[in-house]
Amino acid sequence: MSDASTGTTVSADEAEQQRRGLMLVLSSPSGAGKSTIARLLLQNEDNLELSISVTTRPRRSSEVDGVHYHFIDPKRFEQMRDHDELLESAEVHGNYYATPRGPVEEAIENGRDILFDIDIQGTFQLYEKMRSDVVSVFILPPSIAEMKSRLKRRAEDADEIILKRMKTAVGEMRHWSEYDYVVVNDDLERAYENVRAILRAERLKQFRSPKIGPLIQGMVDDLEQELASQK
Amino acid sequence: MSDASTGTTVSADEAEQQRRGLMLVLSSPSGAGKSTIARLLLQNEDNLELSISVTTRPRRSSEVDGVHYHFIDPKRFEQMRDHDELLESAEVHGNYYATPRGPVEEAIENGRDILFDIDIQGTFQLYEKMRSDVVSVFILPPSIAEMKSRLKRRAEDADEIILKRMKTAVGEMRHWSEYDYVVVNDDLERAYENVRAILRAERLKQFRSPKIGPLIQGMVDDLEQELASQK
Repeated sequence: MSDASTGTTVSADEAEQQRRGLMLVLSSPSGAGKSTIARLLLQNEDNLELSISVTTRPRRSSEVDGVHYHFIDPKRFEQMRDHDELLESAEVHGNYYATPRGPVEEAIENGRDILFDIDIQGTFQLYEKMRSDVVSVFILPPSIAEMKSRLKRRAEDADEIILKRMKTAVGEMRHWSEYDYVVVNDDLERAYENVRAILRAERLKQFRSPKIGPLIQGMVDDLEQELASQK
Repeated sequence: MSDASTGTTVSADEAEQQRRGLMLVLSSPSGAGKSTIARLLLQNEDNLELSISVTTRPRRSSEVDGVHYHFIDPKRFEQMRDHDELLESAEVHGNYYATPRGPVEEAIENGRDILFDIDIQGTFQLYEKMRSDVVSVFILPPSIAEMKSRLKRRAEDADEIILKRMKTAVGEMRHWSEYDYVVVNDDLERAYENVRAILRAERLKQFRSPKIGPLIQGMVDDLEQELASQK
C-alpha cells in the first residue's frame, strides 16, 4: 500500500468512489413542491437515480411503464410481497405502491445513491429495514393556502382527489419530527439548494466510507517511516 | 397562532432563526489545510463565529490577545478549570489550550453557530459534554508528502516544532473514524465547499428546530378547519 518514493495518497474522488450509497427519501404533503425538487436533483446530480416503484394503480396518460412506475396487477404485487421482494409498500387512495428490494441493495453496495419519492408509511418501513442507509427529508409548504393553490394547478386531478390528498396531508404533517431534516419550501431555488447540500454532506459521512481506513493507515505508516529516518 | 383569513405560515428564515445553534469542529493533522478552510468559512458564512480559546502559550508576534486567543497565565487557567468554566482543555506541545464554557452556551441557545479549531482530545471532551450539538469534520491531507510541504511553508515554525507536529499527526490520524464527516483536502475549493455543505445541511437537522412544531400544528389546524368547512 505504501510506496517509499511517493508515499500513500488518497483523493476526494477515491473517498467518494469507495463509499456506500445512500437512500435519499423526500417526503411531504402533496403540494409542497417535492416533485419539482426531486426532478431538479435527478437532472443536476451525478450518481443519483430514482427508485422506480411498482404500483397497482392504473397508468395515467402521461406515464410510461418502467419509467414512472412498473405497473403491475394486484396478483403480482402479492407474489412479490409474499416472497419478501419489497422494501416497503403502502396503500394510498385504494392502490398499492411498493419498492422492489433487489435494485436498491445492488445500487447501494456499489456506491450509487437512490432517490425515493414515498410517503410516511414507506419511510418508516425503510427505517425498520435499513435505517443507517436512509437520509430522510421532510419538505414543508410555507402555508396551507399555498399548498392548496399548488394542488389546484394540477389540471389532471379531480377536486375529490385533491380533497383526499389534503386529508392525507394532515396525517403526514403530524410526523414531521420523525425525519432527519426539515426543509421549508417557500422559495424553490433555496429549498432545492438545501436538499442538494444535505445530499452532498451525507455523502461525506464517515461511516459510509469504511474503506478509507486502510488508505489513512498507509499514510500513518509513511509518516512513521519518515520520523524513524530522522532519528 | 392560526389566523382564519391568511392561515398560519412558516418561512425558511423563521425555521432558521428558531433553531438551536451548533458547534462545528474542524480537526486535522497540521498541514492538512484546516486553518485556510476555517478562515474561508468565517469570511463567507453568516451566523458563524470562531470560538476564542484561552491558552497559556506565549503570544506570537502575529497574534492579538482576544482575537486569536485569550492569553492567560497557568494560574488563571487552573482557576477556570477548577471552577468548571472550561468545556474542553488540552495540553499541546507543553502549553494549555481551553474553551471557555459561557460564550459557547450563550451563542448556541441563541441560534448562533460556533466554529472550533481544536484537536482530537478537545473534540472528545466536547462529545462528552454536548454530543448532539457537535458536528465534527476530520480534514485529511491527500498525502504525507503534501502535508510536509505545507508545514514547511510556515516560515515561523522551527524544524523541531514541525517534527513535533508530525508526531502529533500520527496520533490524530488514527482517530479519523470518530468524526462525523471526513473531507479529503486534495483540492482546497472543493474541500471548502464540502465543509460549507456540511454546515448548511446540519442547520436543517430536524432536532435542532423543535420550535417549528407549533407552526406546523397551526397549519394542520388550518387544514382541518378547511376540510370541516367543505363537509
